[in-house]
Amino acid sequence: MDADLDQALKRVTDELHDLYIPTGVGTVEKPVTPSQILSFYRKYVQKNIPVKITGCTDDWPAVTKWTDEYLSSKLEDTEVTVAITPNGLADAIFDGQFTLPFEKKVKFSELVTELNNPAEDRVLYLQQQNNSFNTEFPKLMDDIEPAPEWSSQVFGTDLDAVNFWMGDGRAITSLHKDPYENVYSVIRGSKTFTLYPPCDRLNLRYRYYPLSRYGEGGDLIPEDGSVPWIDIDQRDPLCGDNSNLHPVVVTVRAGETLYLPSYWFHHVTQTHSTIAINYWYDIDYGPAYGLFKMYDELARLKE
Amino acid sequence: MDADLDQALKRVTDELHDLYIPTGVGTVEKPVTPSQILSFYRKYVQKNIPVKITGCTDDWPAVTKWTDEYLSSKLEDTEVTVAITPNGLADAIFDGQFTLPFEKKVKFSELVTELNNPAEDRVLYLQQQNNSFNTEFPKLMDDIEPAPEWSSQVFGTDLDAVNFWMGDGRAITSLHKDPYENVYSVIRGSKTFTLYPPCDRLNLRYRYYPLSRYGEGGDLIPEDGSVPWIDIDQRDPLCGDNSNLHPVVVTVRAGETLYLPSYWFHHVTQTHSTIAINYWYDIDYGPAYGLFKMYDELARLKE
Repeated sequence: MDADLDQALKRVTDELHDLYIPTGVGTVEKPVTPSQILSFYRKYVQKNIPVKITGCTDDWPAVTKWTDEYLSSKLEDTEVTVAITPNGLADAIFDGQFTLPFEKKVKFSELVTELNNPAEDRVLYLQQQNNSFNTEFPKLMDDIEPAPEWSSQVFGTDLDAVNFWMGDGRAITSLHKDPYENVYSVIRGSKTFTLYPPCDRLNLRYRYYPLSRYGEGGDLIPEDGSVPWIDIDQRDPLCGDNSNLHPVVVTVRAGETLYLPSYWFHHVTQTHSTIAINYWYDIDYGPAYGLFKMYDELARLKE
Repeated sequence: MDADLDQALKRVTDELHDLYIPTGVGTVEKPVTPSQILSFYRKYVQKNIPVKITGCTDDWPAVTKWTDEYLSSKLEDTEVTVAITPNGLADAIFDGQFTLPFEKKVKFSELVTELNNPAEDRVLYLQQQNNSFNTEFPKLMDDIEPAPEWSSQVFGTDLDAVNFWMGDGRAITSLHKDPYENVYSVIRGSKTFTLYPPCDRLNLRYRYYPLSRYGEGGDLIPEDGSVPWIDIDQRDPLCGDNSNLHPVVVTVRAGETLYLPSYWFHHVTQTHSTIAINYWYDIDYGPAYGLFKMYDELARLKE
């Protein structure tokens, strides 16, 4: 039965790749008219397919204004929450453990100073995903669209969070997925996403790792509990047992926006001093969720 | 593993029923504006959810014109293809066989005469699904919309066929599914659909039945080959092994239209002398297909 099941699942995923799951990420212009909104929804959201979008940030003052000087003067002594690790690996597997970052409130100007004069033994990353833009950066509200009209129309669900990202080129976001529809706009620098389609859940194995948190000095301090996580060497994602995976690499540059659909796993790197804004929209549950839930349940049978 | 798999599948289908698969069929007005089109697509097509629609045929001359007298005079000696069976069961399981109807070209006026004076031992049904409206009824073209604007906008795929249905109240369409998005408008009488959601594929068993075709006299004549079909007693669809099914019954009356999504199984009955037009749109393959394909492959493991 196991071999039969594996063959059946391979027939499904092979056919879906033939029919509609892409091996690369295309680029489209921001949908504006009602027919463009419907077409975008049909081609990408309904199909759960990532795409790069141009033109979303063209009218944002942020695009020209957000130099270090402007941001430092505008934000001055505003305290922001920074994730600090000795190696850029926050919320990731390191040394057999799931490592949380040391989190610290620092003045924004101090963050900029350190990003421009990085210490060898610590990596700073503004990566809070708790609606951080609205809570910590209200002074920048006029520089972007707090709730873009096009994406509100496309998703038709609540905008759950707007997050501000800024950090060191050494900071890495380890492979994971979020329970949201994600719109990710890069303002400065570039981000490289390695995306894995939902069907790869069948071959991405979660294991439990003991929980640790970095202290201020960079030492790892064990915490209670353990975390199920995926550990893949992104330098060679298809090695060994992973040859069935379907990674898709896309670089999102300043001025570009990525629609990163729910259920897609992603690993992210960035150039130095990249700044990005991402929008999380609530999921509208339907067959795409059903298909992912099926992959997830079947994968668990093997774990 | 088998019991684990069954439990996993039950967790999936239970959750999907909780999240979005309905236990009844709602009613909406025909979508007209771009935002209504997008909303209809989001709520029903993307989610693969059936719904009744009002207002689709309000402007059709057919609604008032299509009396027997008008149709007979307009179509006169036009020959149309009629399915003839002794029991109303065309393309269905009878006596352990898959029975095809006797097919005959008759003058439309003869069909109307016999429908109004039915023979006890033969049932006539205009049920050709080969774009029959356009091929056999071009004289009625001005009485309906050959390609409704609203549904073309909603689906965004090719209109593959428009079919004309007219027949005896004893004629039954046995449980099956079509590889199309289906828009079904009733002009006269009413049709009652028993719908089964795609997840019921896990509990709907296909078996192979020897092929037979009715002769003109109502006798069954064996043909070469066999047909995989589902045989369920619709008088008691949840009996015995079928208790896991989720039938949803909906009656579509004159003036109403059913959006019958792809991958939904359906069994159909009708009142006497019902007339309907249905539109088949090509499927836009995405997660709804993926989920059905998964159900289908997993069901085959058990067959």
